Amino acid sequence: MTVADSSALDTLIVALRRLPGVGAKSASRMAFHLLQHDREGTRVLARALEQAAAQVRHCERCNTFTEAPVCSVCLDARRDASKLCVVETPADQAALERTGAFRGYYFVLMGKLSPLDGIGPKDIGLARLFERALDGQVSEVILATNFTAEGEATAHVIGEALRQRGLSVTRLARGVPAGSELEYVDLGTIAHALVDRR
Amino acid sequence: MTVADSSALDTLIVALRRLPGVGAKSASRMAFHLLQHDREGTRVLARALEQAAAQVRHCERCNTFTEAPVCSVCLDARRDASKLCVVETPADQAALERTGAFRGYYFVLMGKLSPLDGIGPKDIGLARLFERALDGQVSEVILATNFTAEGEATAHVIGEALRQRGLSVTRLARGVPAGSELEYVDLGTIAHALVDRR
Repeated sequence: MTVADSSALDTLIVALRRLPGVGAKSASRMAFHLLQHDREGTRVLARALEQAAAQVRHCERCNTFTEAPVCSVCLDARRDASKLCVVETPADQAALERTGAFRGYYFVLMGKLSPLDGIGPKDIGLARLFERALDGQVSEVILATNFTAEGEATAHVIGEALRQRGLSVTRLARGVPAGSELEYVDLGTIAHALVDRR
Repeated sequence: MTVADSSALDTLIVALRRLPGVGAKSASRMAFHLLQHDREGTRVLARALEQAAAQVRHCERCNTFTEAPVCSVCLDARRDASKLCVVETPADQAALERTGAFRGYYFVLMGKLSPLDGIGPKDIGLARLFERALDGQVSEVILATNFTAEGEATAHVIGEALRQRGLSVTRLARGVPAGSELEYVDLGTIAHALVDRR
C-alpha cells in the first residue's frame, strides 16, 4: 500500500511490519507519528536497533541475551551451582530474580516447544540445555516454563529427558495466587492446589 | 525495567516505547523477537528509520510527506486547480485517490484540532492552508476530515474561516455506507442520510 509520495516512507512502513503484532494500519500510524511528531525519536530508535543488532549475543552458559561471552548472573560465583532454573525468556528470568527467592543459576530457552508452529527441540537448543545441566555440579533442575499448553509440554519433554539422565527435576508449584479469594479462582487452579496441598 | 544483561537491549526496549501504542511489555516482546528471530529485520528497520528521518519532508504546497520540495500530486498539471480537498493524513489522501473520484489538489493537515490534547490551529498549520486555499485559483474547498468529534470540529473551524474569505466550502456527504442494510445502520447515520437526502 503506497500512502505517500516518498519511497523512504513506504520502506519504513514495510519495515515496521516486521515487529510482532504490527499490521499495515499500525505500521503507517507509527511511521506518521514518528516523522510528524518525533523526528528525534526516529533517529534514537534507529541507533538503538543498530547497536542491539551489533552487540547483543547469547550467553555461552545460560543462553540469555548479553554483550559479553558469559552473562553477569553466570559469572556470579556466590550462586548455588547445584540448582538450575529453566525459563522461557529473559523477562521470565527477571521476574524470578525480582522475587529474591532463588540463588541458583538459570538456563534461558529463548522460546518454547510449539509443534503447531514447527518449533521443535532443536529450535530452542535443548541439546545445549542438557549439556549445561549435566556438567556434574547441577543436582536439581527447576522447570519454570509458563503454565500454558506449550510451556507445560516443554517442561514435560525436558523433565523426562533429564530424569532419564539421573537428575532431580522439579516444577514451580501450581496453586492459588497470593491475595486471591477462592470464589473467584478458576476451578482448574483450585483442583491443582488441592492435589498439591502441603 | 532491566530484563537482560545488556544495556544495548535495555536501550532498545526504551526506544521502542516511543512508538505509539507500545508499552513496556510490547516493547520487550518486540525487542526479544527481533534479536532472537529476525536479526536481519532489526538492521532493515534501523536503516529504514534512519533514511526516512533524513529524507522525508513536507510538500511546500500540500504539506504531505514527500522527498522533493513539491510532491508528485501537486506537480500534476492535469488536475483541476479550482478544487482543494482537505484531509487529516496521507493515509486519508491515499484512500480518496484510490476511489478515482477526485481530480483536484489536496492539503494534508497532518493532524486535527484537539483542544483536550492541546492541539490548536497553529499545530496543524491552518495558516498555511488558508494561504494555499486563497491562491486565486481555488474556488471550492472540500473538507474530508474524519467524521469523529475532532474531525468534525476541525472541519467546522476551517469551513467558517474560509467561507468568511469568500470561498465555497463543502463537506463529504454523511449517509448510509454502500452495501449496508438499514436495520443494522446506527440511528445517527440514518438521521443524517434523511436530512441530506437528494
